[in-house]
Amino acid sequence: MTDFGEEDGYVGIMKGVIQGIAPGAVMIDLSHGIPPQDVLAGALTLQRAVEYFPPESVFVCVVDPGVGTRRRSIAARLGRQYYVGPDNGLLTLWLEQAEKQRLPVAMVELDRPHMWRDAISNSFHGRDIYAPCAAHLARGMALADLGSPIQDPICLDIPQPAPTNRGWSGMILHVDHFGNLATNIERKHLVAFAADINLGIPDVLVRYGEYTINGISATFGEARPGTLTAIIDSAGRLSLALVNGNARDYLGAEIGDMVHVLRELDESDV
Amino acid sequence: MTDFGEEDGYVGIMKGVIQGIAPGAVMIDLSHGIPPQDVLAGALTLQRAVEYFPPESVFVCVVDPGVGTRRRSIAARLGRQYYVGPDNGLLTLWLEQAEKQRLPVAMVELDRPHMWRDAISNSFHGRDIYAPCAAHLARGMALADLGSPIQDPICLDIPQPAPTNRGWSGMILHVDHFGNLATNIERKHLVAFAADINLGIPDVLVRYGEYTINGISATFGEARPGTLTAIIDSAGRLSLALVNGNARDYLGAEIGDMVHVLRELDESDV
Amino acid sequence: MTDFGEEDGYVGIMKGVIQGIAPGAVMIDLSHGIPPQDVLAGALTLQRAVEYFPPESVFVCVVDPGVGTRRRSIAARLGRQYYVGPDNGLLTLWLEQAEKQRLPVAMVELDRPHMWRDAISNSFHGRDIYAPCAAHLARGMALADLGSPIQDPICLDIPQPAPTNRGWSGMILHVDHFGNLATNIERKHLVAFAADINLGIPDVLVRYGEYTINGISATFGEARPGTLTAIIDSAGRLSLALVNGNARDYLGAEIGDMVHVLRELDESDV
Repeated sequence: MTDFGEEDGYVGIMKGVIQGIAPGAVMIDLSHGIPPQDVLAGALTLQRAVEYFPPESVFVCVVDPGVGTRRRSIAARLGRQYYVGPDNGLLTLWLEQAEKQRLPVAMVELDRPHMWRDAISNSFHGRDIYAPCAAHLARGMALADLGSPIQDPICLDIPQPAPTNRGWSGMILHVDHFGNLATNIERKHLVAFAADINLGIPDVLVRYGEYTINGISATFGEARPGTLTAIIDSAGRLSLALVNGNARDYLGAEIGDMVHVLRELDESDV
Repeated sequence: MTDFGEEDGYVGIMKGVIQGIAPGAVMIDLSHGIPPQDVLAGALTLQRAVEYFPPESVFVCVVDPGVGTRRRSIAARLGRQYYVGPDNGLLTLWLEQAEKQRLPVAMVELDRPHMWRDAISNSFHGRDIYAPCAAHLARGMALADLGSPIQDPICLDIPQPAPTNRGWSGMILHVDHFGNLATNIERKHLVAFAADINLGIPDVLVRYGEYTINGISATFGEARPGTLTAIIDSAGRLSLALVNGNARDYLGAEIGDMVHVLRELDESDV
Repeated sequence: MTDFGEEDGYVGIMKGVIQGIAPGAVMIDLSHGIPPQDVLAGALTLQRAVEYFPPESVFVCVVDPGVGTRRRSIAARLGRQYYVGPDNGLLTLWLEQAEKQRLPVAMVELDRPHMWRDAISNSFHGRDIYAPCAAHLARGMALADLGSPIQDPICLDIPQPAPTNRGWSGMILHVDHFGNLATNIERKHLVAFAADINLGIPDVLVRYGEYTINGISATFGEARPGTLTAIIDSAGRLSLALVNGNARDYLGAEIGDMVHVLRELDESDV
């Protein structure tokens, strides 16, 4: 996962380095379209994905506004999977999730230059440090051979939704390719509102600006094309979506915009 | 093949699921840039590609405006290749082609939840149903183990060109990355106009709006850069192209616009 | 590497052909976002990448404004790596580099149709000629079996920087995904200006239009976000970059714009 885009060949170069060290390793692109230097977007994309990858997967992640500064480079083992990349918060949400699941976690600072390429540029650590270290892990090298243990990774301060007297106030965290608007209000915040949340939550209002949506649907598909709906998305987040359309464009919405969930009581007391 | 784009990690997640079930399976991206929910564009892209893939290829296809509704999910065997995806017409053109070639075809509805992931979201069947079923096929599972036979897949009504007293009237079906404009007029419609169609068809006029092109060329390369030409493209379709340029931008053309092929007789009787 | 984009399935089709001939070959995308028909951009992207790929890598390259004309198709061995593609200059910079490194080089014209697909289109030689030939090389076929030796590949005339009485005048050759502006002034042109070029070059001015940058930095990271800097990039080229921003957008810069490096003497004599 990087913010490199795919047009310049930077990702291909990293894969060439990996293939040279770990021939035949399966290489899967998670995303190279993280907005440049947007560590939070990277952390969200990574956390959404890890549980769907098999054990022994190594996630090489480069969203790295600090390349060339003194920020540390790290590798981590979370359960049976690995992270390699800068120590800048990319790991925050995955780490939280691993801790909730009580997975064993170990981290090292990448401080062993003999594990890297011979010549290290100041601007492309993905090629010169992270790809080689990831390839070593893919070949079975122990985490401890890549560097010295650390306990204090940088973590982002992810905005949390706030409880209100009628529900939750949160914000849009992520806008996807379809224009669906994922918020920081999660399934866990909403379970109390429904007998079976997988069937939807009929008795709430979802507010975005001047728009009010009645109920949280179980699926995109129930409503007519063009209808603005609220659903729990495939990553467990409350999301606003326009059925077969683009909610971002329809609403002019942006990351950071507020979204409210209100128990349906009496319109007058809002 | 999906309409997911590549920036959100959805495709990578599907590959993680496949790799977990069928380790080491070769995974090839056909396209993740199908316009959102554009089933016809997906059907065209799929049909152009299948003949170039080896036997035992499994095409996992997710262009799925109906996700979460009661539309069926299916898998199909066409000759020695497989389709896995929604039953919404994506398969239409491939199926027509297979029937013309008299390939054996079998289809099942994916109605065996124990073949899927344990938890099924309402909005990401690519991850939860199609990727696992495709991985099972890639590992050698029989089609019949994935579901119950069906005979009535949904097929799109693809617009056909109409014969005229001087040739054919058709329309633009697809615009590619280079701005080339592929029509629904195919090689088979034009063979009668030329002794050897591989050498081009000199004696026709191709009309688009106010533009008239003299003859169908054997290749892009014959004419000077910037010249508007008509060729039979690499998928066998009559296409309008601007040599080393972008015909869509030059003509302001759109999918659905009419294109006419006329035997060259006498300008006055048009 | 192609200029095909990824939305139409053309790249996937080439991979299907390769997989059919060389099952299980590792396929790595270098870039499919070379600007359409921009052979120089392709040559630069290719040359930046080759040294990071292992021996026996085969680079299939299709940036081919002359497809369908009489331009030759070639394959080449440079050291232990291979090129397959049109003979139009894509190979220029890699070839120069190989010659400097005194690598053995051999080239053939692809003139053996029995090595290609049976039916050859006039517009998609990537699918019909280059993918099969590359797959044969990947399986171990000898270069000489693909065609007849040639000695006279087409080479581009790459613009070179000019020495001035205070330094060098060059131009922007490439703009990357981050908006970094790489010039044709290379590390080799600048080594005389610094005791240790890896620590930066403090005593020069870099001029772009009305902008003057003091010194060439060792890294992006030293300066504050938003600062315009000059660095030696990861490919060894003098580049203009906006720290954590986009220099192209900030400067309105374009490929071909002049950039000057001046020894810091006395402002008045410029």
